[in-house]
Amino acid sequence: MGQLRLFAGVVREGSWVEARIDRGQPERTPVPRPDLRRMLIPIGPVAVFGASNFPLAFSVAGGDTAAVLAAGNPVVVKAHPAHPGTSELAAGAILAAARATAAPPGVFSLLHGPGPAVGLALVRHPRTRAVAFTGSLAGGRALFDAAAARPEPIPVFAEMGSVNPVFLLPGALAERGPVIGRALVDSVTLGVGQFCTNPGLVFAIRDAAYGGFASAVAAAVAGVPPGTMLTPDICDRYRGGVAAAAGIPGVSVVAQAVEAADRSCGRARVLATDLATWLNQPALRREVFGPTALLVECDSMTALVEAARALDGQLTATVHGTPDELGRCGDLVEALAQHVGRLVFNDFPTGVEVTHAMHHGGPYPATTDPRTTSVGSAAIARFARPVCYQNAPPALLPAALRDENPLGVWRLVDGEWTRGPDPAPGAHCASGPRSAASKSAP
Amino acid sequence: MGQLRLFAGVVREGSWVEARIDRGQPERTPVPRPDLRRMLIPIGPVAVFGASNFPLAFSVAGGDTAAVLAAGNPVVVKAHPAHPGTSELAAGAILAAARATAAPPGVFSLLHGPGPAVGLALVRHPRTRAVAFTGSLAGGRALFDAAAARPEPIPVFAEMGSVNPVFLLPGALAERGPVIGRALVDSVTLGVGQFCTNPGLVFAIRDAAYGGFASAVAAAVAGVPPGTMLTPDICDRYRGGVAAAAGIPGVSVVAQAVEAADRSCGRARVLATDLATWLNQPALRREVFGPTALLVECDSMTALVEAARALDGQLTATVHGTPDELGRCGDLVEALAQHVGRLVFNDFPTGVEVTHAMHHGGPYPATTDPRTTSVGSAAIARFARPVCYQNAPPALLPAALRDENPLGVWRLVDGEWTRGPDPAPGAHCASGPRSAASKSAP
Repeated sequence: MGQLRLFAGVVREGSWVEARIDRGQPERTPVPRPDLRRMLIPIGPVAVFGASNFPLAFSVAGGDTAAVLAAGNPVVVKAHPAHPGTSELAAGAILAAARATAAPPGVFSLLHGPGPAVGLALVRHPRTRAVAFTGSLAGGRALFDAAAARPEPIPVFAEMGSVNPVFLLPGALAERGPVIGRALVDSVTLGVGQFCTNPGLVFAIRDAAYGGFASAVAAAVAGVPPGTMLTPDICDRYRGGVAAAAGIPGVSVVAQAVEAADRSCGRARVLATDLATWLNQPALRREVFGPTALLVECDSMTALVEAARALDGQLTATVHGTPDELGRCGDLVEALAQHVGRLVFNDFPTGVEVTHAMHHGGPYPATTDPRTTSVGSAAIARFARPVCYQNAPPALLPAALRDENPLGVWRLVDGEWTRGPDPAPGAHCASGPRSAASKSAP
Repeated sequence: MGQLRLFAGVVREGSWVEARIDRGQPERTPVPRPDLRRMLIPIGPVAVFGASNFPLAFSVAGGDTAAVLAAGNPVVVKAHPAHPGTSELAAGAILAAARATAAPPGVFSLLHGPGPAVGLALVRHPRTRAVAFTGSLAGGRALFDAAAARPEPIPVFAEMGSVNPVFLLPGALAERGPVIGRALVDSVTLGVGQFCTNPGLVFAIRDAAYGGFASAVAAAVAGVPPGTMLTPDICDRYRGGVAAAAGIPGVSVVAQAVEAADRSCGRARVLATDLATWLNQPALRREVFGPTALLVECDSMTALVEAARALDGQLTATVHGTPDELGRCGDLVEALAQHVGRLVFNDFPTGVEVTHAMHHGGPYPATTDPRTTSVGSAAIARFARPVCYQNAPPALLPAALRDENPLGVWRLVDGEWTRGPDPAPGAHCASGPRSAASKSAP
């Protein structure tokens, strides 16, 4: 809901179109400089794939749908087969809103289908101009591949998961190891571990203070009640994933919740290993979707930096430290920044604020496009593209680009941001052809 | 050179990192809002492919290389085989500059290779993080496909050509048809027709005024001296392309320059056809690289709009009209905006200004990513990605994100653009973990 509220405000305010105006210089020699005005326009129909883990926030009426509509595009949603009824209810609400506001017919459609056929047909349809997806790496990559193989390739904005590593510095563990341990377990088991920002890897130095942290983790995990997961399939994959990781030599189970009677309940489990094992076992880098984390025990700050450099692309990384040791961990932060979209300090990554400065994205395999976010006001720009007007008569310009700035939007005028009218109205010219022969490159 | 000068200014000024700050709200309930700060950081090593048609502006030391370096990345250039010597000279100048400024080793490299092997190896290299290309559709698509098929896909920013349609409204032809005809021929034959913004299609209504325009075109074309094209291969393809188009039933040659004795000289030729033939012959949509254009004779404004709706993706479209008829051609402009990156009025597309508001891009097949530009200050952002700092201690923040705004850059603070310091320094908090369990979605 935060996303919908933010987008509504951003669209009403209007500055998201990123208007830029470079006024003409009719007196420039050897040729006049034309008047140039650029803004974002809608990209066209977008296919949105509902997520299994967010039947509301990232599905039919979720953030991607809202961003597509906010940019001015029609949307076709492929419902996730895990919650077709919820999808229909959300679609009914959207269609009622579209009728109530006299939105154009076709502004919203919902499709169902159990396998990949419907989704792939949607991605391959010649009118589809972009795709948004939240889900597994395999699912996101399949859509990306289909979109790239089209006669006209289109962008796929897939958010595919992340193990969201957490780095615990020794001073922080000495100062408040048990507090961090309990808060970590809260974050790992939030929503039965089914958040895309759920931390799945924890790097710490196994020193004297480590024991207090580890004991608190074990105690907290033991007290986590079993929780019903989104679907029986997801729960089966969770159980299998944890069992496979625990079976790797050098990996041990250090904490677990009670077993649930119900097979669709996820039981929280925390594993541990050493850095060498983690570095050498690709299976331990993969996300296990559910309430689990792997503690990777290191022997020095150098080892923590080595771990950071070996990470795959991630949505987030988190560092806990005292003010003093954070001031000295520039190497670690620098290494982490190369692999993540968001760096969290003395907090946990599971909360994703919906604001202008939020970035919910990251290098592959976290997403298919590290330049984009699926949360926050910048998410709208995924579904828009610039168009530039050269020497356009005022009557043909969109309101955001007219001299008088009737919408009062922020605009970059000759390189400076302003919300006012263009101080020199009428500077553009719209009459008379000019020679094209003497213009500058390219 | 305009591009290099603009980038130098933009990088010195610093606002290109698009800093955004949403200050924390420690008093928010049920949980405090964290401090979030986001800016662009370099994406990593980029492969740049030199263009055949711009040995300077779009090759070794051209706009793409400058944009990659401006964003803070190392660059590896694949020289175009048409001008290896020029490429070496430009590379020598860049390497000398890198030494003189003590830039890190490896900031710039140049590779040569006649076939696709070197280029493909560069695109497939695991450290390459993005690709920039200016050239043919076949070449750009091959690189795009290789990049999309990587284990970790990377973006390809390929600018692949365009036929840059020109629409001539009847009032403009009646008022100044001969003037437009001569200026059009200047634009079509500029640089022996080897600009990516070279107009290749002209749509006009065949009314009483059309004859004066067409006669001026024929006279101007007849006077165009033969020009040496970039390579003998390009000239052969030009001759073959024009001959193939002229051989299509319904297409006639309406104007041509004198034949050149030298086989590598391109002879300007203008063809004509009717709208039905153009709509039904896919070959007439393709760019013929060289000094040629096809006049498509229409019978009404409705036909012009029909033509606009049938266009493929283009870098530019141009409309010539009187103020009065431009005020009435909203349908045409609306249709053109769906297919192009830049709309030019009463001017010609061949000049590309290097400014903030320029957009040199467009829907496929003009480029592989209609959201990006290869000219103007926005070109830098192709080679950067956002990173977000949550509750970071000030000492770990890049200068552009610090409260006091030491660089004086434009920043979006709580949704408003400002160049000043953050008015509430110290509002962020960097101490103490908080519970992650009660935060809002997602």
